[in-house]
Amino acid sequence: MNLNEEAVKIAENMLAEDERLRVKAVTIGGATVVDCGVKAEGSFEAGRLFIQACMGGLAEVDFRLGELGLPWVQVATSHPAVACIGAQKAGWMIKGKDFTALASGPGRILAGKPRETYDKLGYREEAGEALVALEAARYPTEDVVKEVAEGCGVEAGDLYILMARTASIVGSVQVSGRAAETALYRIDKLGYDVGDVGHVMAEAPVAPVVGGDAKMMGVSNDMIIYGSRVYLSTRAELEVQDIPSTGSSAYGKPFGEIFKEAGYDFYKIDQGIFAPAEVCVNNPASGMLKKAGRVNLDVVRRSVGL
Amino acid sequence: MNLNEEAVKIAENMLAEDERLRVKAVTIGGATVVDCGVKAEGSFEAGRLFIQACMGGLAEVDFRLGELGLPWVQVATSHPAVACIGAQKAGWMIKGKDFTALASGPGRILAGKPRETYDKLGYREEAGEALVALEAARYPTEDVVKEVAEGCGVEAGDLYILMARTASIVGSVQVSGRAAETALYRIDKLGYDVGDVGHVMAEAPVAPVVGGDAKMMGVSNDMIIYGSRVYLSTRAELEVQDIPSTGSSAYGKPFGEIFKEAGYDFYKIDQGIFAPAEVCVNNPASGMLKKAGRVNLDVVRRSVGL
Amino acid sequence: MNLNEEAVKIAENMLAEDERLRVKAVTIGGATVVDCGVKAEGSFEAGRLFIQACMGGLAEVDFRLGELGLPWVQVATSHPAVACIGAQKAGWMIKGKDFTALASGPGRILAGKPRETYDKLGYREEAGEALVALEAARYPTEDVVKEVAEGCGVEAGDLYILMARTASIVGSVQVSGRAAETALYRIDKLGYDVGDVGHVMAEAPVAPVVGGDAKMMGVSNDMIIYGSRVYLSTRAELEVQDIPSTGSSAYGKPFGEIFKEAGYDFYKIDQGIFAPAEVCVNNPASGMLKKAGRVNLDVVRRSVGL
Repeated sequence: MNLNEEAVKIAENMLAEDERLRVKAVTIGGATVVDCGVKAEGSFEAGRLFIQACMGGLAEVDFRLGELGLPWVQVATSHPAVACIGAQKAGWMIKGKDFTALASGPGRILAGKPRETYDKLGYREEAGEALVALEAARYPTEDVVKEVAEGCGVEAGDLYILMARTASIVGSVQVSGRAAETALYRIDKLGYDVGDVGHVMAEAPVAPVVGGDAKMMGVSNDMIIYGSRVYLSTRAELEVQDIPSTGSSAYGKPFGEIFKEAGYDFYKIDQGIFAPAEVCVNNPASGMLKKAGRVNLDVVRRSVGL
Repeated sequence: MNLNEEAVKIAENMLAEDERLRVKAVTIGGATVVDCGVKAEGSFEAGRLFIQACMGGLAEVDFRLGELGLPWVQVATSHPAVACIGAQKAGWMIKGKDFTALASGPGRILAGKPRETYDKLGYREEAGEALVALEAARYPTEDVVKEVAEGCGVEAGDLYILMARTASIVGSVQVSGRAAETALYRIDKLGYDVGDVGHVMAEAPVAPVVGGDAKMMGVSNDMIIYGSRVYLSTRAELEVQDIPSTGSSAYGKPFGEIFKEAGYDFYKIDQGIFAPAEVCVNNPASGMLKKAGRVNLDVVRRSVGL
Repeated sequence: MNLNEEAVKIAENMLAEDERLRVKAVTIGGATVVDCGVKAEGSFEAGRLFIQACMGGLAEVDFRLGELGLPWVQVATSHPAVACIGAQKAGWMIKGKDFTALASGPGRILAGKPRETYDKLGYREEAGEALVALEAARYPTEDVVKEVAEGCGVEAGDLYILMARTASIVGSVQVSGRAAETALYRIDKLGYDVGDVGHVMAEAPVAPVVGGDAKMMGVSNDMIIYGSRVYLSTRAELEVQDIPSTGSSAYGKPFGEIFKEAGYDFYKIDQGIFAPAEVCVNNPASGMLKKAGRVNLDVVRRSVGL
C-alpha cells in the first residue's frame, strides 16, 4: 500500500483521458499540473478521480441523482484514518510570493505536513513520485512548485498537482467528497483516536455552482454540514451524539451567514459546525449502534437557492 | 476521442462475454450483428453496454432498484452534445426492401446522418470501423447491411450492428437510457445551442416488458416522459420551465393513449411531450440554478399496469 | 463460462490487495484460505468480492447508503439459477472432527453437493481449481480441507476457501447479498423451475454487527426477511403473492424471536419466512407484471436496535 504511487497512477489515467474528462495538463517548473477546474472546465468523472487521488486510491467513489434533483457523491474507504486524515485533509498551507493555498493529498505524508498527524497515525511511506491537490483559482508559481517538490523530497518532474477552483464542478465534487473526512476530523477534535475508525461510507449532495469562489466556499460547506450522511464502523466506543453538526451552537443557517456573523473569522465560529449532518456508528466489538443528527434539506435548499 | 473506435471496443467486449450477457453474434453480409434482444434474450448488463456503445463510450451507466420496485438506469456524460445528439439519437432512417428501422450510434457521424447535425455540432471523425444500433424485431437483410456500411464508408467486415427489439430487456433499458438525449433534443427544439450543455446526469425507470413491440413503444416512452430526472450543467442561460414534459398540452396520460388519440400520427402530437419529466439546470458561469417539472409515478404505474 | 475459474480469479485479486481489503491469506493443508472476517477484520469491498466469488463471477454488486442510514448492498445477475442456487447457496454440509460449517460457492458444482441440484439445473463444469466459501468462526482443520478438495476433485493446492464469521462485516454483507438467492430458493420450494428465472436485481440493508454469531444469525436474516427488495424477470408464470415473507405465519417479529419460540428448531419454523420482503416479477413472454410483499423497516429497526 503506497498512497502516492496509487495517486500518481490515477493522475496518469486522468491525463490519458484528458479530453473525455475535460481536464488539461500544464507543466510548471517541471511539475505536472492537472487542471481540473481552473482554466479547464472539468467534469463529474474528473471529480471522482480527484477524490480517489486525494485519498491515495483507497476509496470507492460513486454518483447518483438524489434528493432535490441534485447529484450526490458517495465515498467509501476501509482505511479512513490514513486516507482521510493522512491524505485527503487540506493540512498543508502553501505560501509563495503571489500564491497561497491549502494542499491536500498523499504528498503531505512525504512532506510530513503536519508531522504530529503522522506520528499519531503511525503511518509513513516512501515514494519516488508525489501528488498533492490544490483548491485555488490560479496556477501555482514556479517557486511554489519548487517548495512543494522539496517538501515532498521528490524532483519537480516527479510531482503531480491536481487543481480546481472552489467555483467549479470538480471544486464542488471534491468538497462533497469530504463528508467522511469531516466526520474523522470531528472525531479527532473530540479526543478520540481516529485509528479506531475502521470503515466509513458517506454521501453528500454536490453543490451546483451558484456563485464565485467566496460564495461557493460557503455553499459547498453546507453540503457537508446540512446534507451529508456518514456510516462508520469503529473499534472503540464513541459519544455519537457529539459528532454531527446539529449539536453546534452555530447550527441552522447557511455557512455563508455564519461566517459573515463571525466577522469572517474562522476561529470565532463554533468548531462543532465542521461536522457531518447525520452519523450512524457501529462498533462490532461491543455491538454498539447509534445514530445522531439528521440531514436538513431545507438549509441545503436555501444555500443553493432552490 | 473517437466514438466509433470506442463503441467497437465495447461491442468486442460484449462478444467476448456473450454467454454471460446473453447476447449472440450473427454475421450478415459480412457485418457483425450483436443480437441483444431479437432472437437472443439479452440482459440488463448488455443494456448497459448497448447504451455506452451508442454513446461512443462517453457515458457512465449504472442501475439501481428504485421507486415502484423497478430497476432504474442512470446515465452521465460530460460530452452530451456529441454523445447524445451526435451518436445516441436515432437519427438515420434505414430502408431496405423488407426492412425499415431507425439507426442510432456513432456510425451516424461517419455517414453524416443528418449532415446538418454535424455541421451544427462542429464534430467530425474518421474511423476504420463503425457501429450503429437498430431497434428492430428482426435482423437486417444483406442489402441493408451493405447500405449502412457504404453510408459509413467502411467495409462490411468492419461494421458492427447492435440490435434489440422494443419488447425486450435491452430494448427497455436503452430507451430509458435516453433521458439525457431527450433533454438535449428538447433544448435543441427550443432553439438553444446544445453545444452549450457541458454535463448531464439523468435517470429513468426501466420499463418491464408488459406487451409486444407496439405497446412497449408507448410504455418505454412513458419512462422518459413521466419517470425521468435530468441534471444539466450549461454554459448559457435557458428558460428551464420550457423543457420538461409537464408543459405539454398532451401531458397527463400514457403515451399509448396520446398516440391513439392523435390517430397514430406522430406529427399531430404536441412536440413538447417528447421531454424529460423533471429537469434541474445549473449555469456555473452565471450562477443560475432552476428546476422545473416533476416525476409523475402515477402515470408510470398506470403505463406498466402496477 | 466457468464459475470456479472466475471465482478463483476474484480470490487471487483479493489476495493481491489484501492490505487494502483487510483480508489475510492463510495456508491450511495446502489450500489457500482467504480470511475475510475470522481473525482478519475484512471490509465492505471484501464483502463485495466475496459475493461475486460465491456467485462464480456472474454478478454485479454495489453499495449505497440507504434507508435508516445503513449501507445497502445490491446484487444483479442474468444467470440466477446457476449463480444463486448452483453456487451461492450454502448447500454443502462440511463436517470434520472439530469443525462443522455450511459451504457455498462454485466448488459445490464440482462436488455435486447436492447432486439433484445440478441434475435439475442441467449444469456441470470441469475446473482445475475450486472455490468454496465458509461462514464459520474459526479456520477449518487440515482434515476438513482434504475432504473439501477431494470432494471437488482438485489438489488441495488448487483449492481456495473464503471465510467470514457471522458476526463480521463481510459476514453481514454476504448474507444481505443473498436476497436474490432467497427469492430463487423460495420459488424452487413453491415448485417452480428456477431455470425459468432469467434476470434478477435485488437489494437489502447490511446488518451492523450488534452482537455475537448467534445473535447476528438472526439479525442478518432479518435484513432479507424484512428489508429486501427483489426484481425478477421470468420466462414462466408465477403466483407472485406466494413468494414474499409477508405471507408466512411466522411473519412480523425479528427472526431471533421466531427461532427462540420454535425451540431453536429450524424445521418447526414456517418455511415461508425464508423469503424476500418485497418482490416484483415480470414475464416478458406473457407481459405479466406483479408485485407482492413490502419492505418493513420497523422490524429491521427493531432487529438492529435503532
